[in-house]
Amino acid sequence: MRALRFHGNKDVRVDEIPEPALRPGWVKVKNAWAGICGSDLHEYSIGPMNAPTKPHILTGESLPSVLGHEFAGTIVELGEGVTDLEVGQKVAVFPVLSDHTCYWCQEETYGLCEKWGFLGYSGYGGGMAQYICIDKEAIHKLPDNMPLDVGALVEPLAVAWHAVKLSKVGPEHHCLVVGAGPIGIATVHCLLAHGVRSVIVSEPSPARMQHAKDAGASYVLDATKEDVPAFCKKIADGYGVHAAFECAGIQAAFDVALASVRGKGAIINISIFENPLVIKTPNLINRRSISYIGSNIYTRVEFQEVIDAIASGRIKAPEKMITGRVSLDDAVDKGFRVLLDQKDKHVKVLVDPWA
Amino acid sequence: MRALRFHGNKDVRVDEIPEPALRPGWVKVKNAWAGICGSDLHEYSIGPMNAPTKPHILTGESLPSVLGHEFAGTIVELGEGVTDLEVGQKVAVFPVLSDHTCYWCQEETYGLCEKWGFLGYSGYGGGMAQYICIDKEAIHKLPDNMPLDVGALVEPLAVAWHAVKLSKVGPEHHCLVVGAGPIGIATVHCLLAHGVRSVIVSEPSPARMQHAKDAGASYVLDATKEDVPAFCKKIADGYGVHAAFECAGIQAAFDVALASVRGKGAIINISIFENPLVIKTPNLINRRSISYIGSNIYTRVEFQEVIDAIASGRIKAPEKMITGRVSLDDAVDKGFRVLLDQKDKHVKVLVDPWA
Repeated sequence: MRALRFHGNKDVRVDEIPEPALRPGWVKVKNAWAGICGSDLHEYSIGPMNAPTKPHILTGESLPSVLGHEFAGTIVELGEGVTDLEVGQKVAVFPVLSDHTCYWCQEETYGLCEKWGFLGYSGYGGGMAQYICIDKEAIHKLPDNMPLDVGALVEPLAVAWHAVKLSKVGPEHHCLVVGAGPIGIATVHCLLAHGVRSVIVSEPSPARMQHAKDAGASYVLDATKEDVPAFCKKIADGYGVHAAFECAGIQAAFDVALASVRGKGAIINISIFENPLVIKTPNLINRRSISYIGSNIYTRVEFQEVIDAIASGRIKAPEKMITGRVSLDDAVDKGFRVLLDQKDKHVKVLVDPWA
Repeated sequence: MRALRFHGNKDVRVDEIPEPALRPGWVKVKNAWAGICGSDLHEYSIGPMNAPTKPHILTGESLPSVLGHEFAGTIVELGEGVTDLEVGQKVAVFPVLSDHTCYWCQEETYGLCEKWGFLGYSGYGGGMAQYICIDKEAIHKLPDNMPLDVGALVEPLAVAWHAVKLSKVGPEHHCLVVGAGPIGIATVHCLLAHGVRSVIVSEPSPARMQHAKDAGASYVLDATKEDVPAFCKKIADGYGVHAAFECAGIQAAFDVALASVRGKGAIINISIFENPLVIKTPNLINRRSISYIGSNIYTRVEFQEVIDAIASGRIKAPEKMITGRVSLDDAVDKGFRVLLDQKDKHVKVLVDPWA
């Protein structure tokens, strides 16, 4: 079968590899679509980071790795002993690999599992190949009427869903999203699904501002031109937003979040920082009873909640996140390279392993 | 009557002033003991900060201010219309002044009330005078068998109680207190009252280490000599503490807290920082799902909960916090100056306005 594999720094190739083999309790999925994630871009440009250079403790595999951890497809074959799934079932695949027994896995904080791995990096294949064989425990059924390209959005939406749940926002709350990259946009969708009172987006790039508007944000502002904290105060009862989602990973984004959030409010961090973060006025955190909360991946339950929220229409039109589609052959030039060089252009580019 | 009043920077005097007058709905309290707080020391050495230099919006008063916001006494006279309190009742006084109607007061985040004030700074007197007249709404009854010096500890304990409640710790949790000044020691008492699994204290001063031991801390370490994060991991299931209370207000304390807390853990900030805080590795916050939570003062309910916890013995031997007692005349030389110059010597020094 054909697969997009990461061989090392800036070395991603379309390879012809054997179809994966079923094991007892596993299923074979014909992959339909896989999203290119920011961490795929990091892996491409400054990796290997996630992809193991020596055999991974769970999979026993190392580079080259099939890419793709945001993906959906259809079950085409059942392994021995699998009686609760059927061939033809549409599925999204929970991509986190863990040992399922350690303290952190039981806490559903998979990122802290010592054996932690990810489909699309750590072995057992990924979504950017024509097939994957995987333990049935990783399978989440998709409704028949859910398109498989939307199924490939479950994973990035789950990242945002987890963050939104951590913030505990509901219909009485005003929210700010700082940074309208893919996770910022996913956060807008998840906030709207939680029925919050307003979703204000702060983003300097005109293209990304448009993505935020397309996602349904209530207000979209450029913090380099407008006073976002003052706007938040004005919109949000005179006090500021209840929760700010820092989705940019830069000092300026945190500063806007801290200045925009009301007392007792929360700043949720779902971004990766490349530099230290300076809290210039730490007493604001204390005097205003602010919480700064780190959010990382998602739980099994949350992955399913996203599927349910899409199915029920609470997450509205997530397909608007899909701004590009590429074949395996074009994945690097028209996917990875475009996302790296013109990062504002797209929200989510999907790879079709059959095109 | 005699009163200790703050007249301005480094200018605190024992003054003879008129006894305060009752108003309808108010009560007159004969003060017994008032604690000297760190913020009194700040006011003395770098103020006026809290004490108003022009008439306070609620009290109409300005400098000089009667000091003392941690105090207890006995009701000696009832104002017109007060039928639910009796002369002779021991009381602690809730010192926060607010307008009781604004959003923040209704949220019980008094520190954000625009009209915010404090007995002992903003007018209506304070605990370091022989009497105070105050709205009966500020009165919390103390049990007959509770000594009034212990009643003067309710306020600083409430600061710590609020922080401990924010952390949501219970009997299954290991905790770290960084910094064993008065608030750190109060935090030790409140954590023990919450029945946590262990209370580890990190503090470099030998005198303060002893205070922490006296308060009942499970383990007391000097972070300049011992590896506190490694010790926390060892004691706390191999993972680190569930909650760390940053009670020092310095970078090194935050760094120890962040390195000692396990994934999904909380760092509670109950200190005042004089400098910016640098989060050197912000991705640890996110990847380990850490919460950094600012804690400020307390609610009416929490003030009462502390009284109940002392009365029921859940807060054990709080009187150990009292390490010194001074008369009004000695309050500056043997109180303020000693606390400023030999800050490790004491936990809490009480002023007796009648001595």
